[in-house]
Amino acid sequence: MKWSEAFIPTMKEVPSEAEVASHRLMVRAGLVRRVASGLYDILPLGLMVLRKVEQIVREEMNRRGAVELLMPALQPRELWEESGRWASKELGMLTVKNRQGAEFALGPTHEEVITDLVRREVRSYRDLPRNFYQIQVKFRDEIRPRFGLIRAKEFIMKDAYSFDADEEGAARNYQTMFEAYTEIFRRCGLDTRAVEADTGAMGGKSSHEFMAMAEIGEDTIVECSSCGYAANRELAARGAGEAGKAAGELKTIAPVDTPGAKTIQQLAEFLGEESSRMIKTLIYEGDGKIFAALVTGDRDISESKLRRKLGVAELALASEGTIEKVTGGHLGFSGPVGLGKVERMVADIAVGAIVNGITGANEKDKHLLNVNMGRDYQPDEVCDLSLAEDGDACCGCGSPLRLSRGIEVGHVFTLGTRYSEALGAMFLDAAGKECPAVMGCYGIGVTRTVAAIIEQNHDENGIMWPREVAPFAVHILPLQGGQAAVLECATALHDELAGRGFEVFLDDRDRSPGEKFKDADLIGMPVRVTIGPRGLKQGKVEIRTRRGGEELEVAPAEAAEAVAGVLGKL
Amino acid sequence: MKWSEAFIPTMKEVPSEAEVASHRLMVRAGLVRRVASGLYDILPLGLMVLRKVEQIVREEMNRRGAVELLMPALQPRELWEESGRWASKELGMLTVKNRQGAEFALGPTHEEVITDLVRREVRSYRDLPRNFYQIQVKFRDEIRPRFGLIRAKEFIMKDAYSFDADEEGAARNYQTMFEAYTEIFRRCGLDTRAVEADTGAMGGKSSHEFMAMAEIGEDTIVECSSCGYAANRELAARGAGEAGKAAGELKTIAPVDTPGAKTIQQLAEFLGEESSRMIKTLIYEGDGKIFAALVTGDRDISESKLRRKLGVAELALASEGTIEKVTGGHLGFSGPVGLGKVERMVADIAVGAIVNGITGANEKDKHLLNVNMGRDYQPDEVCDLSLAEDGDACCGCGSPLRLSRGIEVGHVFTLGTRYSEALGAMFLDAAGKECPAVMGCYGIGVTRTVAAIIEQNHDENGIMWPREVAPFAVHILPLQGGQAAVLECATALHDELAGRGFEVFLDDRDRSPGEKFKDADLIGMPVRVTIGPRGLKQGKVEIRTRRGGEELEVAPAEAAEAVAGVLGKL
Repeated sequence: MKWSEAFIPTMKEVPSEAEVASHRLMVRAGLVRRVASGLYDILPLGLMVLRKVEQIVREEMNRRGAVELLMPALQPRELWEESGRWASKELGMLTVKNRQGAEFALGPTHEEVITDLVRREVRSYRDLPRNFYQIQVKFRDEIRPRFGLIRAKEFIMKDAYSFDADEEGAARNYQTMFEAYTEIFRRCGLDTRAVEADTGAMGGKSSHEFMAMAEIGEDTIVECSSCGYAANRELAARGAGEAGKAAGELKTIAPVDTPGAKTIQQLAEFLGEESSRMIKTLIYEGDGKIFAALVTGDRDISESKLRRKLGVAELALASEGTIEKVTGGHLGFSGPVGLGKVERMVADIAVGAIVNGITGANEKDKHLLNVNMGRDYQPDEVCDLSLAEDGDACCGCGSPLRLSRGIEVGHVFTLGTRYSEALGAMFLDAAGKECPAVMGCYGIGVTRTVAAIIEQNHDENGIMWPREVAPFAVHILPLQGGQAAVLECATALHDELAGRGFEVFLDDRDRSPGEKFKDADLIGMPVRVTIGPRGLKQGKVEIRTRRGGEELEVAPAEAAEAVAGVLGKL
Repeated sequence: MKWSEAFIPTMKEVPSEAEVASHRLMVRAGLVRRVASGLYDILPLGLMVLRKVEQIVREEMNRRGAVELLMPALQPRELWEESGRWASKELGMLTVKNRQGAEFALGPTHEEVITDLVRREVRSYRDLPRNFYQIQVKFRDEIRPRFGLIRAKEFIMKDAYSFDADEEGAARNYQTMFEAYTEIFRRCGLDTRAVEADTGAMGGKSSHEFMAMAEIGEDTIVECSSCGYAANRELAARGAGEAGKAAGELKTIAPVDTPGAKTIQQLAEFLGEESSRMIKTLIYEGDGKIFAALVTGDRDISESKLRRKLGVAELALASEGTIEKVTGGHLGFSGPVGLGKVERMVADIAVGAIVNGITGANEKDKHLLNVNMGRDYQPDEVCDLSLAEDGDACCGCGSPLRLSRGIEVGHVFTLGTRYSEALGAMFLDAAGKECPAVMGCYGIGVTRTVAAIIEQNHDENGIMWPREVAPFAVHILPLQGGQAAVLECATALHDELAGRGFEVFLDDRDRSPGEKFKDADLIGMPVRVTIGPRGLKQGKVEIRTRRGGEELEVAPAEAAEAVAGVLGKL
């Protein structure tokens, strides 16, 4: 393809709207343009990469027996009522009402629709296992879209749904998809980690996220450098290393005046005590019930861990009214001693280890000193509730954990029978008994993957496309200088390489060498061939790899063969 | 591919939901399943055909220099306010409001978004011409979805938008797209006619619809068998042949009592007169103004012609209140004599030809006899306003017109500068003057095309896929009868044909020959190869074309070559 026949509006300026490298480069290299907050035109060069990623996804899914179909984006409300998720806020679902008053979800996910299909079409264990997938546009009511295609209101997703006769089959399908994802991201040139993750609104038993490692990632990953344990920080289990109860004499509980000390920091300064000795008391509402959660003052709570522990579908910090009712109306001075009635009180393991702790007195401007679990208050359970911190002990081997950041590009879930039971996707087993299908679901953010590829594959001059997803393998750059011979040589090489089956791009614009070189670095094809009048006189063209910058000079007649050789090694 | 690895839920029963052959066959052959009214799962076999059609579209568009991109389905309300189409009812647009109260169109078309892109990216006449297209899901608030994929709430469309520096360039782009469409539908195996059409809510100057001829088509086409004139009936011009004023003495106007005769039919029976001598008076509202339109009693009005003539954007029959105000409150007794004030009164040419006509007296249960244009009332204009009928004279050559029916699969429009002026998509011409780009737009209903293909290519046993869009070229049907040799021979042929680059399907199910033959006819691949134990003993396999049913017996070793030969002739 020639530049003059394409539409690649490159930019020298750094777009003000873009905060991260991938977003800046997608705009500057003419891959996308912003239509409105979180909404983008995907321009021709961006679409080529998107299609390459889609094709890799398709090949790896098909190879493993998954079957592609296409479900509607508009989904009737009735189906979502059956699963109980119509009112779920966690999915950020956009809804539409038509002229006749019927309501539809703009499907953020398709468990309901696929389970509805399977309940009508699958009768017997002989029809299982099944794994259906689609590559489709998805919508999300994103309040704060950012980072370009990384967090958008509209995006392309691959979503797959497996149906098995039993848990073992479901586990096999899960493992197969896990392997598919590993291979897909490898082919995309992404450095990813599979980490244990929260199941969230999907409600299954277990899940892994595939994280593309990047500083700008919105997720924090906890990894043990020693035993290989890796999890999303929201879920990462902490070792019990420091959780044993510290020694010490239990002192008498004593109130203390702490005027205006509503936060842990204010309290620590006021009393001159370590925040790790303070018991932070948080009131939550979940599924219509009220809960109390205790963590030490130096830790943040993990709402994922808390929700799992409490076994509720949706969980949020309680409203001010509820907090006042439970704590006696003294915001900032809550504590477990003398707390009003809650459904359950749970405490982090580190809270259980505190001797003579400090906590709110459920009274304005008052705290209690020398508070001890067991003697002064008794949680219903002591468990791991707080977010792991850098240096925490690994739950597997006790070695220190390290935090790093990633972009979630894939997510696999075991769903169990939640949806098949709710919607009645039953099959007859070999004994003629009616059973619910055991499900799994598997998502890849396709547009987000494109952004993550750039985030991991760029330098200060532009994108460095991995070979398999590059829009073109070769970028031919004739420095014309008014000489027809240069463009002729470039066109001949273009045609020869295209004839060999390579995707070739030719910058046939009448621009300065500087501008052409800058644009070639910016749009980042793996191999560049520069053809200039001076080189041609000496019988030479220059081959250069975008990544690494290895250079090679060859005779024009040998250029195609040499380029093929260089590409073969990428 | 093997049947056992696919998901093709064929059905013997005729689905009750389906009214037309294509819809029935799409359900029975396992191409689609209904999710809700107007919403479908496109199952794997259906998706394969859809992708083939998309690929044909893509190839023919790319070949003609059009560039593919992908615009968002969600479009900010603000863009639609700029074009003045946010409130347009004609587009059947679904809208969405997010949590923050921002409103979006679920784009039924993309003139606004593409013009917004072009106004930001195109500066100079050197950047023109441009032709952008996308293949994308579209949504429509369809009140009465029907015929499966033919009229659905969600569908796949190819929409293209061209931008030129002048009218001549725009006309060239229009012609190029016209040729692309002709070739696309030919490759899809469709019999289509390009007919003159109404521009509707697009608001351009001229347009052609590509109609796939079919009895069940929702559009009526008017064709002249003699000179080749063809148009949508809504727009088809009628010859002036019979429009000359009939001779006859003008009689004195006379009121007549017509109790209860509100319709033309009632009046014709009551008076014993021909309906062609009656003047039907219709009151319309358009762009906030009131209009009267007169047609003869034996004709239907064409609202497309009327709207064009009046030059209004939206037009609808007036509300009862308006009609009462204008006619004096006597519904069913309206007439042009003594009618209240209207913006304009227009009359069909046939009305002008009536001598001593009959019309409503604008008084309850009263009509007027011997009404004559010029003497008793004077329309602002006499023009062609009514729908053509079978046998009308052609406007070009006077030969009789014939009516037939078609499914609109494509539509091309010249848009002029309506959108570029409204949104400010200006460029500098060679003289440095700022000019609005001249636009065209070009749509293909991709999912609808799949349905139209089936509507035109089926028999009583099932689908007969045209070669280029068939999911598989060859369907191998082993009649096992418990013999491993049969399946071995079938598998060997499958692999050999696949190795030669053909798409091959193998029915490896353990089903009766009758069931397999029925399913093969139903899903309709172009060539079937039957391999049975009896034939194998005689050293023969049977090759049969789905369309035409030509049969051929060859030795197993020669089967691949013979199949290739048969396919080469399709």
